[in-house]
Amino acid sequence: MAVLDEIAAVVGAGNLLAGQDAAPWAVDWTGAYRGEPLAVARPGSTAEVAGILSIAHRAGLRVVPAGGRTGLTGATHAPGALVLSLDRMARIRAIRPEARLAVAEAGVVLATLHAAAEEVNLRFPMTFGARGSAMLGGALSTNAGGSNVLRFGQARDLVLGLEVVLADGRILDLMSELRKDNTGYALRHLFMGAEGTLGVITAAAVKLVPRPRAFATAMVAVPSLPAALTLLRRLDEETGGGVEAFEYMPRHYVQTHLARIPGAREPFARAYEHNVMIEAATTVAREAEPGPDGTIPFVEAVEAVLAGAMEEGLVLDAAVARSEAQRREIWARREAAAEITHGRHPFVDTDVALPLDRVEDFLREVRAGLKALDPAAEDFVVAHLGDGNVHYSVYPTRDDEGLMEAIRAMVDRTAVALGGSFSAEHGIGLAKRSSMAALKDPVALDVMRAVKAALDPAGLLNPGKVLPPA
Amino acid sequence: MAVLDEIAAVVGAGNLLAGQDAAPWAVDWTGAYRGEPLAVARPGSTAEVAGILSIAHRAGLRVVPAGGRTGLTGATHAPGALVLSLDRMARIRAIRPEARLAVAEAGVVLATLHAAAEEVNLRFPMTFGARGSAMLGGALSTNAGGSNVLRFGQARDLVLGLEVVLADGRILDLMSELRKDNTGYALRHLFMGAEGTLGVITAAAVKLVPRPRAFATAMVAVPSLPAALTLLRRLDEETGGGVEAFEYMPRHYVQTHLARIPGAREPFARAYEHNVMIEAATTVAREAEPGPDGTIPFVEAVEAVLAGAMEEGLVLDAAVARSEAQRREIWARREAAAEITHGRHPFVDTDVALPLDRVEDFLREVRAGLKALDPAAEDFVVAHLGDGNVHYSVYPTRDDEGLMEAIRAMVDRTAVALGGSFSAEHGIGLAKRSSMAALKDPVALDVMRAVKAALDPAGLLNPGKVLPPA
Repeated sequence: MAVLDEIAAVVGAGNLLAGQDAAPWAVDWTGAYRGEPLAVARPGSTAEVAGILSIAHRAGLRVVPAGGRTGLTGATHAPGALVLSLDRMARIRAIRPEARLAVAEAGVVLATLHAAAEEVNLRFPMTFGARGSAMLGGALSTNAGGSNVLRFGQARDLVLGLEVVLADGRILDLMSELRKDNTGYALRHLFMGAEGTLGVITAAAVKLVPRPRAFATAMVAVPSLPAALTLLRRLDEETGGGVEAFEYMPRHYVQTHLARIPGAREPFARAYEHNVMIEAATTVAREAEPGPDGTIPFVEAVEAVLAGAMEEGLVLDAAVARSEAQRREIWARREAAAEITHGRHPFVDTDVALPLDRVEDFLREVRAGLKALDPAAEDFVVAHLGDGNVHYSVYPTRDDEGLMEAIRAMVDRTAVALGGSFSAEHGIGLAKRSSMAALKDPVALDVMRAVKAALDPAGLLNPGKVLPPA
Repeated sequence: MAVLDEIAAVVGAGNLLAGQDAAPWAVDWTGAYRGEPLAVARPGSTAEVAGILSIAHRAGLRVVPAGGRTGLTGATHAPGALVLSLDRMARIRAIRPEARLAVAEAGVVLATLHAAAEEVNLRFPMTFGARGSAMLGGALSTNAGGSNVLRFGQARDLVLGLEVVLADGRILDLMSELRKDNTGYALRHLFMGAEGTLGVITAAAVKLVPRPRAFATAMVAVPSLPAALTLLRRLDEETGGGVEAFEYMPRHYVQTHLARIPGAREPFARAYEHNVMIEAATTVAREAEPGPDGTIPFVEAVEAVLAGAMEEGLVLDAAVARSEAQRREIWARREAAAEITHGRHPFVDTDVALPLDRVEDFLREVRAGLKALDPAAEDFVVAHLGDGNVHYSVYPTRDDEGLMEAIRAMVDRTAVALGGSFSAEHGIGLAKRSSMAALKDPVALDVMRAVKAALDPAGLLNPGKVLPPA
């Protein structure tokens, strides 16, 4: 195929894979999306990305950008298309500690960026379970969330500048290192969350933040979700906005964790229905300095808030980590979520966001909805409660795509009816296009289609993703 | 004119102004932009805005949205066009303290929103000198900055949801109250900073934050700008990200303030070249509680950082406010900036952003540049130093538009050459279109034009603003 020869000439023959060599790109890690790509191109530079897209543009070749491929929505599914894998663009171009920023290419693995920031005593705060494989470009393209959005925001909030290659191969230079830049439309925000349908992110300038000097990490049991929210607000004020994680695990989560993970332990002597993992952090030296008795003022302060809340009945029990090992155990319980939910079939995965005060209503309503659809189905709940982001999973009693789609639609519809969203942090990809069609404001869909047509008139970039058919 | 009759039928005859009644809209507050509008329509609801735009769309009528009209770039200049004034849409639709958000219409004055948030013990953190007149819709449309961007970000960072009327009169409902929402392209970011050229913002859901319990406010003298930046980073860590204002005033600023404002006082017994106003805040009760001797732990902590910095030679002198009156005096000196710079002619106003470590280079280079263009011109500097945002003003020796344009171009070019931006927080409007043409990435300009054509194909919304002619 002449067009592949042209692309091989750009990236070098060894970086254009087909057949067996391209097999890893024929299935994603969820196992739900299978399909052989035409070929996989692995460019090593922005200029090579531009070269590939320019050739694809002329030839009318469909292109699917891919990174660590840890997404959950099939956004890198590429049957018959050219996969543009950014994995070789893995250079950290610059770290500027004085300016608290890093400039990194799309193929940099998140964990690598974390380590590089730590070397200069700073921190890149975006983190989630897949950080050992997920790449920066993919994380920005899905506007990823994770477990400390509460404090630092989603992916887009951490980006100062972006380098993007457009559908026709032109390089769009939005590579600002500035905190303020009001020179026209906020184009960088268009590409973040667009899942590669408007352009290919090749590099970004991202914010770094000071490394915490101390953490206060705890498991708490609360009588109800409203009590948890009152506690969250109080902790937020009393740590000066230092709460980074506020993760909800109902009793069923704890039980599943105990059953599935060898060596897992109960968080408390008693079993409670509502359990929350809390982590707060401080960069303040005087708060992190252990006193003569070894206690850390910041941890003491968090304990004082918890003690006060316990007296008021807002907290039933609390276990504060006294060592890094105890902190790790608390985190491990939460980070096992993917491991203990996935790998069992049939399985329905969701990712909704609710106004903070509607989470309880949501859980009640989806449980009633599930009862009507599949009375003996099992469900599973874990939530970034501080963001109102609930991962509500269902194990239906039968492997029936119609039933599973009905469950998904019911969950998404319930969230939207309560003022929520049917995708909080995983994006749309293929998996949520039907909810986009059913639940998104039709005017918003029209505007999105107009933007897509303006930036990729031939529809060659990640076709079929994000936008439902008109 | 039949089209005006149609519009009068939508808003009511009393809310369609022409001739003498429209005179206030014929000049802006800078006095630099004059021109009689065709008429001024003052809709009272989103439906009325939709009605007006639908009529204008059919009739091919140019429409210029306007709010408090405190902008500095001529973005509401409307000769011969219909002004769409949002001032009657001044309802705060909801304040939800539990969810820490407010839903407010475009015509709500910022100071009104501040007061409403304070009533529920919360705070809307966007603030700047014009807060008594500036309206929310205009502030969001320009992605306004102000004096605590350092902590809370620019306008776009405070917005959860947006209601927009499109060029053809359709209402686009992006009214999320969620912290996480990944359902397709980030359309709300397109309209913020677009200065009304892509759609008309009619309402927004904005974040509120806890009200501070204590402030530490100080004037400090530093030996150099790099010393100031080291101090900023240290204060930021030692207040847990609590620094809200870090405002630079060189000696000339202080002298001008003394000369122009009755009752103004020197900040220090000695005169220093580099003066910085600092404010940090805390929401933490135990940090804000006065001790037995009346001292406040948070203020003590900031003083300790300043004392340490003084020992190291990073700070030459410091005066910490001991009372609200002293705090007010410190703020008044900074907030007099507009009063003491404007009102003198001829005058060249700029608003650039630099990487934090290039501010000194910038000042040296623009001064050399000014010497070459107009050796006897006077300059004036004030900066949101924590954001790298410098307002460099010039009083040329003669009222010569060619000279003034050359000075503006030199300042903007110098900023961009140092990795900066020619508009940090004021936007583009008419005033900075020539810098857009000369200095913005041409591919970015093309993409902006494509977006404009997609959303407003007839070019009726605030025509001629933001984008330079192709």
